[in-house]
Amino acid sequence: MCELLAMSANVPTDIVFSFTGLAERGGVTGPHVDGWGITFYEGKGSRTFKDAKPSSESHVAKLIKSYPIKSEMVISHIRQANRGEVSLENTHPFSRELWGRNWTYAHNGQLSDYQEKFNTTRFHAVGDTDSELAFCWILDSVVKKFGNTAPNDLQAVFSYIATLADEIRQLGVFNMILSDGNDLMFYCSNNLSYITRRAPFGQAKLIDTDVVIDFNKETTPNDVVTVIATRPLTNNELWYILQPGEWKVFNKGELLFGS
Amino acid sequence: MCELLAMSANVPTDIVFSFTGLAERGGVTGPHVDGWGITFYEGKGSRTFKDAKPSSESHVAKLIKSYPIKSEMVISHIRQANRGEVSLENTHPFSRELWGRNWTYAHNGQLSDYQEKFNTTRFHAVGDTDSELAFCWILDSVVKKFGNTAPNDLQAVFSYIATLADEIRQLGVFNMILSDGNDLMFYCSNNLSYITRRAPFGQAKLIDTDVVIDFNKETTPNDVVTVIATRPLTNNELWYILQPGEWKVFNKGELLFGS
Repeated sequence: MCELLAMSANVPTDIVFSFTGLAERGGVTGPHVDGWGITFYEGKGSRTFKDAKPSSESHVAKLIKSYPIKSEMVISHIRQANRGEVSLENTHPFSRELWGRNWTYAHNGQLSDYQEKFNTTRFHAVGDTDSELAFCWILDSVVKKFGNTAPNDLQAVFSYIATLADEIRQLGVFNMILSDGNDLMFYCSNNLSYITRRAPFGQAKLIDTDVVIDFNKETTPNDVVTVIATRPLTNNELWYILQPGEWKVFNKGELLFGS
Repeated sequence: MCELLAMSANVPTDIVFSFTGLAERGGVTGPHVDGWGITFYEGKGSRTFKDAKPSSESHVAKLIKSYPIKSEMVISHIRQANRGEVSLENTHPFSRELWGRNWTYAHNGQLSDYQEKFNTTRFHAVGDTDSELAFCWILDSVVKKFGNTAPNDLQAVFSYIATLADEIRQLGVFNMILSDGNDLMFYCSNNLSYITRRAPFGQAKLIDTDVVIDFNKETTPNDVVTVIATRPLTNNELWYILQPGEWKVFNKGELLFGS
């Protein structure tokens, strides 16, 4: 199992607090010691920091914890390898350009008997994980259905991706986070939760390390910030726990649609 | 004008010395203050660090200068914007997956009247630079000629890309660095130089800042390291200056072919 973390917000927000909790799971409070990665969107652009080293001892993770990059959307992943060796090319998040946007994806779970299904034409895996292959198959399927230019109705695209995720879930565990840089989609196979924070803001206490934050001091009254994680990161707030097969699409911190 | 820097080596080598010289050009000794980026290949995997801030004052650039990431191939770029605003999506290097490999690209120069020529089908620009459009057009053209799976003969692919670069050079200045993670190609329009360092190693002195390195202490006798830069980075070594239209492909520090 791996740990997923994502954020969708209506103002550029730093993820230092949540990432600090997550990074502890990469070798201190959790067994996820096979690398980690984090993607920040800044406008249409994005940048991904990755390391094949455990996040709890990574130089680059220290940078992320100390340097508050403000972003409206973040996707992060800490890996415990099950399929594919420990290497940079097998480290999530994965990204591909489609329709002139950077799509970013991370997966938690394990799939079986997937090679035949994930036979793709246009998008090919660089590494050798089931996760990246599934991502390539999703994008390949989307292009086959919607063509080489983005349709006006992206809700149709995300609804179609949810049906693809339903198919993939037949092959094992498939908790997924996916974004085109604008909308943030997540799909639950067995472990995924989220919280939307808005005024009035309160205090939050991390489960994995002794850190408390007072969001009231860090935010303005109009901020809306949704955080998605494999398991709740704080123990004094109410997280929404998704059901198997349930999925959501958020934009700027607000729920757009889903099941 | 922007600054290009790349490295091809037969052993994982850090680029701290050369990047230190280059980063000075991003706001101290040079006018290139519109962001920078650097891609490291580690095996088939790669990671790119980017910042829209000047490299001479970037937190992330400080990390790169202090944390010796060892890599057999590096591509870096410091930007002075001419086409496209200063933003993360307009910051080089650009990357796309093709044939199951991460292709990375950086461009120095400026093009005119390119919109019609660079009309692409499969690869689309995320930002709004002439550079990224040219990259998308190159990959689009390569797929149209060679198909959806990699041919056995990559020399034919790079030779074809050189003819595409000849075409692009008709539209302005096109100094380019391109890699599929295995081979490193560079194409000269007006400013590009390289040096291959091998035993016996000596001392090198950076032009842009007061740093001297003794490669003899940093290397083993079998190391072969080629560094490519817009202009020579050191003033006590002999750099090869490319002619307009000249191009080379290196692998593990050694020249494979070119013109």
